[in-house]
Amino acid sequence: MALIVQKYGGTSMGSVERIEHVARKVASWHQQGHQVVVVVSAMSGETDRLLKLARSIDPRGSAREFDQIAATGEQVTIGLLALALGKLGVQSRSYTGWQVPIETDDAHMKARIQRIDGARLLADCAAGRVPVVAGFQGITADGSVATLGRGGSDTTGVALAAALKADECQIYTDVDGVYTTDPRVEPKARRLDRITFEEMLELASLGSKVLQIRSVEFAGKYKVPLRVLSTFVEGPGTLITLDEPQSGGNVEEPLISGIAFNRDEAQITMTGVPDRPGIAAAILGPIGDANIEVDMIVQNVGGDGATDFTFTVHRNDYERALEIMRGVAGELGAKGVAGAADIVKVSLVGVGMRSHAGVASKMFKSLAAAGINIRMISTSEIKISVVVDEMYLELAVRTLHKAFGLEGTPGA
Amino acid sequence: MALIVQKYGGTSMGSVERIEHVARKVASWHQQGHQVVVVVSAMSGETDRLLKLARSIDPRGSAREFDQIAATGEQVTIGLLALALGKLGVQSRSYTGWQVPIETDDAHMKARIQRIDGARLLADCAAGRVPVVAGFQGITADGSVATLGRGGSDTTGVALAAALKADECQIYTDVDGVYTTDPRVEPKARRLDRITFEEMLELASLGSKVLQIRSVEFAGKYKVPLRVLSTFVEGPGTLITLDEPQSGGNVEEPLISGIAFNRDEAQITMTGVPDRPGIAAAILGPIGDANIEVDMIVQNVGGDGATDFTFTVHRNDYERALEIMRGVAGELGAKGVAGAADIVKVSLVGVGMRSHAGVASKMFKSLAAAGINIRMISTSEIKISVVVDEMYLELAVRTLHKAFGLEGTPGA
Repeated sequence: MALIVQKYGGTSMGSVERIEHVARKVASWHQQGHQVVVVVSAMSGETDRLLKLARSIDPRGSAREFDQIAATGEQVTIGLLALALGKLGVQSRSYTGWQVPIETDDAHMKARIQRIDGARLLADCAAGRVPVVAGFQGITADGSVATLGRGGSDTTGVALAAALKADECQIYTDVDGVYTTDPRVEPKARRLDRITFEEMLELASLGSKVLQIRSVEFAGKYKVPLRVLSTFVEGPGTLITLDEPQSGGNVEEPLISGIAFNRDEAQITMTGVPDRPGIAAAILGPIGDANIEVDMIVQNVGGDGATDFTFTVHRNDYERALEIMRGVAGELGAKGVAGAADIVKVSLVGVGMRSHAGVASKMFKSLAAAGINIRMISTSEIKISVVVDEMYLELAVRTLHKAFGLEGTPGA
Repeated sequence: MALIVQKYGGTSMGSVERIEHVARKVASWHQQGHQVVVVVSAMSGETDRLLKLARSIDPRGSAREFDQIAATGEQVTIGLLALALGKLGVQSRSYTGWQVPIETDDAHMKARIQRIDGARLLADCAAGRVPVVAGFQGITADGSVATLGRGGSDTTGVALAAALKADECQIYTDVDGVYTTDPRVEPKARRLDRITFEEMLELASLGSKVLQIRSVEFAGKYKVPLRVLSTFVEGPGTLITLDEPQSGGNVEEPLISGIAFNRDEAQITMTGVPDRPGIAAAILGPIGDANIEVDMIVQNVGGDGATDFTFTVHRNDYERALEIMRGVAGELGAKGVAGAADIVKVSLVGVGMRSHAGVASKMFKSLAAAGINIRMISTSEIKISVVVDEMYLELAVRTLHKAFGLEGTPGA
């Protein structure tokens, strides 16, 4: 019998019928003898409605008042779920952030949790009750309501699990787990039984958006086993864990967990840049000053005292970045500036590649065999990313999915 | 410069535009140098929407959870009004019930205020800020949210005014004061400049519903000067006060403050009841057992060892009460039972009648001169009520309004 924190998102709480469905799921875990603490989001769309109301009065108004208003969305759903549990004969009590209390700093609208007092929740569990806690919110030192920023309910769930030393934090969402890649691109994509925190972070930041990235970092830091599962489809979901697969003699062991991709990139290359110290800063400084975020950066070793410098930005920033680079190229005496907005990034992610040579060469060979030209390469310890023309996205994902055996049976 | 508590109801907070209108009113008082504490209701219809949502899950669910849900309505409007004040350059902070804190007992959905700590609100006032407090809600000893029941925001306003020792509690509503009678019945009805708490209680309970009755009792008990005024029409409103008018030599002093009436009554008379101790209890006991509320009760002194016993009930209970009385009449050996559902009660209210003889006879004479037959009479220290046929309601109200000079210039 375990202590489990379950988090249900806005879609799961989107109507009275769905709240009653969630209550039945919670009741089933409770009746199996588990101690369950539930964290919920507001009904889908409600937080947006409240913030729109606040902005219609003053879009630059006090963040404390925005939080006061926005936090009511979860206060409604905790009450509704506690009522639905009560109706099923499960004793329950709802808790706002301040009632737990969940203490935060005073950075309104993007507050960070500082301390959680789990005593009341644990007392409820011990007495056979199911506490239902409002996600996304806490209380500052001066007694104001603070919110954690969008998607903050995941963070609440993980932080509660850490504070209560729960056996598992289950994040219920509208997908039934983490997949080897996006099933809309590769129908053979397969749900992963387990994945490491590091892999999850790479997959999440690369586009397989299942969990709020901050909550995954948090779970990793506090060693909280995290499980992503579906509210609507029964199944074991995907367990996100610290344990890496044992890469011993088992040749069946998958090297790669998944393939992420990002369609929103654009590439800019400055050619013939004088190869001297400080050149990267001279190029990227003006981009940073213009509040443009840079993703991949590659600098080739130059031969004749000059080098080529390439980076990618969000496609929306492409024209602006290109304009800036033309000015910089003139100042630096570079040969020229070129770019492409119709490119995508495709990444292989897997802790297995740490101990296996040849992953990169296998990747490049597979892509070449499919006739796909690689424009840019960047690697990290558990990830290899390539930039290819946008027209090759689906082909590249499917080619790699097959080459690394991801459509096979789930790994241990 | 005074300390003023202002309470704005749901209609006044019904839209962003109306909230901005309220903010301009508050800002104007603040800019005149007054210290203002504002209490607000939820947007009109919002509390009903929230309670309907809760009832749709479990109409008999935990009252604590109903309160958790219902209290969010005011948490939204305090934030919105604080934003609107901020936009006008008036520094403001919003407070939920627990943030003040307003401590209540744990009778959820009908909690009573036990203690208010006004320190934070007074500190705001001293610093030139306008605190905006959620009406209708407080916090119990165990840290749960409790609501005061419908209309409870008036009570919050009065209780805060008492706790802060405010100079005046202003209740803003959609009427511009208390009238001598309903203007829909007597177009010459006149707004009263002032009225005593006792008169207000009689007028309110008799149908001139302007304020929640509990808040008037509360204001009288704690000697908080209360003023009813309109959010939408400028004017001095009506001051509700402890001071009685000086009834000395001034013959112009009005004896009567107003005329109330109630259309929803029905009359039942038992004739020829044996006149012996315990007869009233024998008649009214079965009525109380059936959960029927009795309003007026009149027993005539009998001549030949028998008496007539008459009472009024709500018109909806008439048939049921008549049925019960027929049974009781048989048991008691009474002569018979008669009744009428087409009757109304008309009441003169005024503290002036305490020291002036002849009010009753003037009332009866005026009604007789207008050809109106009185079916029943009941009196208290500051009220005389008569029951007449429903067809005479308008005539009776207008006759008395003129006879007692209520259409004249306002009294002091």
